[in-house]
Amino acid sequence: MPPKESADLLIEARWVMPVAPVNTVLTDHAVAVTAGRIVALGPSAQLQARFEPRERVLRGEHALLPGFVNAHTRAAMTLLRDLPVYGPRMRWLWETVLPVEQRCMSPDFVRDGTQQAIAEMLRAGITSFADMYLFPEEAARVAGAARVRAAIGLPVADGPTPWESTTAHLANAERLWDEYQSDPWVSLYFAPRTPYALSDATLARVRRVADELDARVAMHISEYEVRRPLLRLQELGLLRPGFTAIQPRRLDEEDLEIITRTGICLVACPQANLRFGGELWPLAKLDAQHVSIGLGTDTAAAVGALDILAEARTAALIEHELASAEVLRMATLGGATALGLASLVGSIEPGKAADLVCFDLSTLPCQPCARPADAILFAATRNQVTDVWTSGRAAVSDGHLLAFDEQELRALARQWAERIRMGVAA
Amino acid sequence: MPPKESADLLIEARWVMPVAPVNTVLTDHAVAVTAGRIVALGPSAQLQARFEPRERVLRGEHALLPGFVNAHTRAAMTLLRDLPVYGPRMRWLWETVLPVEQRCMSPDFVRDGTQQAIAEMLRAGITSFADMYLFPEEAARVAGAARVRAAIGLPVADGPTPWESTTAHLANAERLWDEYQSDPWVSLYFAPRTPYALSDATLARVRRVADELDARVAMHISEYEVRRPLLRLQELGLLRPGFTAIQPRRLDEEDLEIITRTGICLVACPQANLRFGGELWPLAKLDAQHVSIGLGTDTAAAVGALDILAEARTAALIEHELASAEVLRMATLGGATALGLASLVGSIEPGKAADLVCFDLSTLPCQPCARPADAILFAATRNQVTDVWTSGRAAVSDGHLLAFDEQELRALARQWAERIRMGVAA
Repeated sequence: MPPKESADLLIEARWVMPVAPVNTVLTDHAVAVTAGRIVALGPSAQLQARFEPRERVLRGEHALLPGFVNAHTRAAMTLLRDLPVYGPRMRWLWETVLPVEQRCMSPDFVRDGTQQAIAEMLRAGITSFADMYLFPEEAARVAGAARVRAAIGLPVADGPTPWESTTAHLANAERLWDEYQSDPWVSLYFAPRTPYALSDATLARVRRVADELDARVAMHISEYEVRRPLLRLQELGLLRPGFTAIQPRRLDEEDLEIITRTGICLVACPQANLRFGGELWPLAKLDAQHVSIGLGTDTAAAVGALDILAEARTAALIEHELASAEVLRMATLGGATALGLASLVGSIEPGKAADLVCFDLSTLPCQPCARPADAILFAATRNQVTDVWTSGRAAVSDGHLLAFDEQELRALARQWAERIRMGVAA
Repeated sequence: MPPKESADLLIEARWVMPVAPVNTVLTDHAVAVTAGRIVALGPSAQLQARFEPRERVLRGEHALLPGFVNAHTRAAMTLLRDLPVYGPRMRWLWETVLPVEQRCMSPDFVRDGTQQAIAEMLRAGITSFADMYLFPEEAARVAGAARVRAAIGLPVADGPTPWESTTAHLANAERLWDEYQSDPWVSLYFAPRTPYALSDATLARVRRVADELDARVAMHISEYEVRRPLLRLQELGLLRPGFTAIQPRRLDEEDLEIITRTGICLVACPQANLRFGGELWPLAKLDAQHVSIGLGTDTAAAVGALDILAEARTAALIEHELASAEVLRMATLGGATALGLASLVGSIEPGKAADLVCFDLSTLPCQPCARPADAILFAATRNQVTDVWTSGRAAVSDGHLLAFDEQELRALARQWAERIRMGVAA
């Protein structure tokens, strides 16, 4: 008998759902992890015989999945969760959110808010997220320290914002690009403001810089576009597989043709979109045409909890033709693709990072659990996440968030709420 | 100083949301309970000074609400949760559900399935439910034993069902009516099958009997109606405040006029309806016209978890004009009205039964919690229910389900799944 191979971690679960290949449920399987990477996926008995792990985690009533990907959020806005919410989105952002942001915006606000969001996302099984907000250097620093996979958007605007001059944020972007070029946790992308707010010259410049750096570009496409935004972006050469369109409205046949031809990714934010009074797109149809779709929460100020499982359930309820396994793929590998991280995360495959999440499916609503994908999507909640690993290290264990002091985070959230209420800058 | 009054229980919570009056959040308030009834609601300090309770429960980060009401379910069908789900609803019921029911239907099936459903509902903060299934005597017995508020439907069909002759279920109905006339937990109502399946003569007979007994009538109105079902039921004299229409489809202006004029109650089942491919009605518009609306889960076989909070969130997301407080009223007092129990439960008012639920709002997604109704609806999950009381006695305490052995229930669910899979009758 050959000697056993060493491994850092062996996770044995009742079910392993690797997502790639889609719609696969492996019973009594295990995942071996070494140096932060998945080294093997196989029947538990086989991997027990093959590996001598330093740590062994047994989850007999649980499903092991790749960590969820929140493909679009504005992390720091968790601190603005008590504002009233109404649609349309842009009107709400201008009339209700912007006046508050102008009072409280600061590097500290972004640091504290992003930390809040990351703690909450990890607890809900989200191991990767794409952020699109301000002071990206603060968000990047917090994400790296928290060992969470983050794609941080570099804001691009035509003019100054209330907190940065035009030149300042471009200079920032260049400096950050160099700093994070080979970071294990943080990647960067260009996040030009919504198309109608930008000149053709600025958008063309973004394209040139993105091409040079082989950088991704993502844009939130608002309901206030006058020209056909996808057509315009295509004419400017921005639409390619490295482009992500976030929640564009009113997709017609011509838009669908542009999307499939250019191979861009889409990100749907089902709950925020409904709350703002929008309609969901035909996700089942897009999925059938092999469009890459990720799921995002958008801002916590609009949706409440940063909860990709809830986004997935909402998508599945409304797009009832979509199989649960397809929706879970959007919540993981689909999002990873939209972040440019599909070769690293989004599925349980040897060689990928061990970003994993364990769901307890022993609760009554999940019985009898002959279809674990349906049970997770329709009968579980984010509170049934028991364990979360990023690069093989536990961020949540037995339902407890490690490396964050929840008491402290709660106090911080309340302090910011008080400051905002009093109209006092930080 | 006068001597203190005795009380069985004093619950002090950070927030009390009595639902009536709607949109009221009382900070640092308490509820005193004696002999199963609410005897006082007031500031904690005041009630501490007034009462000497036998038991005191302090919930410093929690909101206390009336228990949720599941205004329409088919409780025993929890045992059929692993069937594939698709729309339209009636086709699914006939083609997928009925063949399985014909194999497994028995008093034991209804007893075990209803028990499963009740345990799950109590754990999710649901203290009252309306059931519409078969073998009502079994469902009634289980509900009474579990100390949960239940309105049990007495099936009415034109012909025999696969498990009962026409005369058998009518004889059953009469016997049960006498048995449960003054039961503290169980009330009965007539549940004729969907209108198109019944003759005018049968429906007229239901009306006569219901009038004589002062009994409520509730009907699920399917998508397969040929004639205008509400108009037909109105012509037959069935529509009155004691009538509940469950998830009727395609409400047009004429239907709305009938609904408001006759004062019937409506029950919306948002998640099941979406999953079956239906559209939600204009809930905000109906609510503005003071139509009494309750929320139901319909069958667990379609929605997964029996979770009224999730139904409420779905309704609020889609009907984004509805205030959170209005949706919470539908999930409590609205449902109680549809069950004919509005004078007993559905709000926290002195004299009503102490059917109460406590939500832990200390989790990160609920911070900073300046708007507890929004926090419950958009940032909490059913797993944050920590305590549930029915008539002042704890059914869930500190997150643990009392009086049910969850292990045993899980085993039972799996046994039934196995029997159903093997095609073996019980």
